[in-house]
Order: sequence, then structure tokens, then C-alpha cells
Amino acid sequence: MSMQLHPYWISGFVDGEGTFYVEINPHKEMGIGYQVSPEFRVVQHEKNEAVLFAIKKYFGCGVIRVNHEDRKEYRVRSIENLDTIIIPFFIRYPLQTSKKFDFLKFKHIIALIKQKEHLTKEGLLKILDNALIMNRVHKLKAIEIKKKLLE
Amino acid sequence: MSMQLHPYWISGFVDGEGTFYVEINPHKEMGIGYQVSPEFRVVQHEKNEAVLFAIKKYFGCGVIRVNHEDRKEYRVRSIENLDTIIIPFFIRYPLQTSKKFDFLKFKHIIALIKQKEHLTKEGLLKILDNALIMNRVHKLKAIEIKKKLLE
Repeated sequence: MSMQLHPYWISGFVDGEGTFYVEINPHKEMGIGYQVSPEFRVVQHEKNEAVLFAIKKYFGCGVIRVNHEDRKEYRVRSIENLDTIIIPFFIRYPLQTSKKFDFLKFKHIIALIKQKEHLTKEGLLKILDNALIMNRVHKLKAIEIKKKLLE
Repeated sequence: MSMQLHPYWISGFVDGEGTFYVEINPHKEMGIGYQVSPEFRVVQHEKNEAVLFAIKKYFGCGVIRVNHEDRKEYRVRSIENLDTIIIPFFIRYPLQTSKKFDFLKFKHIIALIKQKEHLTKEGLLKILDNALIMNRVHKLKAIEIKKKLLE
């Protein structure tokens, strides 16, 4: 019998173990010259990969890959899936720790991308300002990109 | 309004962030010469202490203390509260990661303590064998105590 997860269990587990992450990299062919890559991720020791598969099954999207050495990650990168599956889930089953603030910034960034604002300078600046107050985002890199855009 | 936690959220959060721990220390006045101290613990950065207070409120037992530097812990050490509150909770709202194996050993150890078996050599050996296959338990110390008991 495969593992059946309760949605509130997933919310609690993600509050401890999940990450809402946004990477911003130079990319010649993209709008203003930068690619914005949001990602929702849960990393576990490989001994717990059954839980990652159960989360993947619950959401019906995302992939499981090797993260680092004996660690595996479940991740969702598709804007469509983040927008229609992951974000509505955490609105319905809210996070309780400070990770909820990361989630709110992440949600805002996805909305900006959906409106294609990441392809404009103003939109990208808004995204950078949101990313700058998120955990685990490479802040120096974001500040540097912001400087370049404002030159 | 204070934070209201869903029991499955607590189960998921503990699966990521909780610890079931047993410490065994020499203690002249205790039965066979050792004190067995089980503990259920959730550690968080102090910025998330509201979550620890909400967990404490949900269980109606335990205390919140400084863990280390800017980290705080919610912990339950009372055998009575572990036996009648914490263990029944995780039977009803089960853990899903490998932490469930720690929980099962912990549950077994609490049952042995309730039967006063930790005061006998045979009981303490059973407790040590359970503790030895738990995560985060000081294994070298447990092996040393086991050796001494078997001398």
C-alpha cells in the first residue's frame, strides 16, 4: 500500500523541510536579459524518498531528483503548476512558521511572472525586491542585478 | 488571535523538526545505578517561538526553554505526559518519515519505564538495545553502559 498523506501533514512537513526559492540569472534571449526561475523544493535523505514520492503523488506534478550525495529532492519549477497547484494548496493549508513570509513573496513573484512583468525592467525590479527579503535567496547576486538594472 | 494548529500539521512539522530522544546517565540512587531520561523535543529559531507556544498549547503540557543561542525548544520530559498525551497523539496522527522508527523505539522505552523495568538490569538492557537503534542517541555511551551491565 502506498503512503497516503493528509494535506495538513504536508503543510507541517513543508514548514519544516520545504523551500520556496527564486533564482535570477543573466540570459541573453530573455526579455530584459535575465531569467527568473522560481522553484518549490523539499529535500530529504534518500532513506525518506517514499515521502517525496507521496508528496509528488499528492500534487500530481513535479519531479524527484538527486539533490546532493545521499539527499533527494522533490521539486516543482513549472510556473503553471506552481500557480495552479502549489500556491492554492498553501493558501488552503497555511504555513505557520516564518516560512509563510517566504511563501507570500514567492506567490507575489509568480503573479508577476504570470503577468509577464519579469520581461520588463520595472517588473524585474519588483521581483528582485521580493526576492531580497526571502530566505536562502542569493542576496548579493540579487543586489548586483538590481544595481545593473538601475545604472 | 493566537495560532490554532491542525493535528496533522503538528505531525508533519514534527516529522521534519521533532526529536524523540533518550538519555541514559549514571545515577547512584536509581535502581540499577542509571537514570533513563526520555524527551520529546522540537527546536526552532526564536523567530518561530509562536509555533512552539502553539504546540505547547495544543498538547497542554511541556515547557519552552532556550536551546542554544538564538534557538528555542519545546520539550516534554514527564513520563506521565509522554505516555498519556504525546505517544497517543502520534499513534493517531502518524509520522511518515524514518522518524516513525525512532518514535516506535521511544514508545517501547516509555512502556518499559512505566512497568519499572528500567530499575532492573534486564529492563535497562532492553532500553539500551532500543536506544541504540534510535537516531541522535549517544551510541558510544549506550554501548559503554551496556558493557558495564554485562560485565
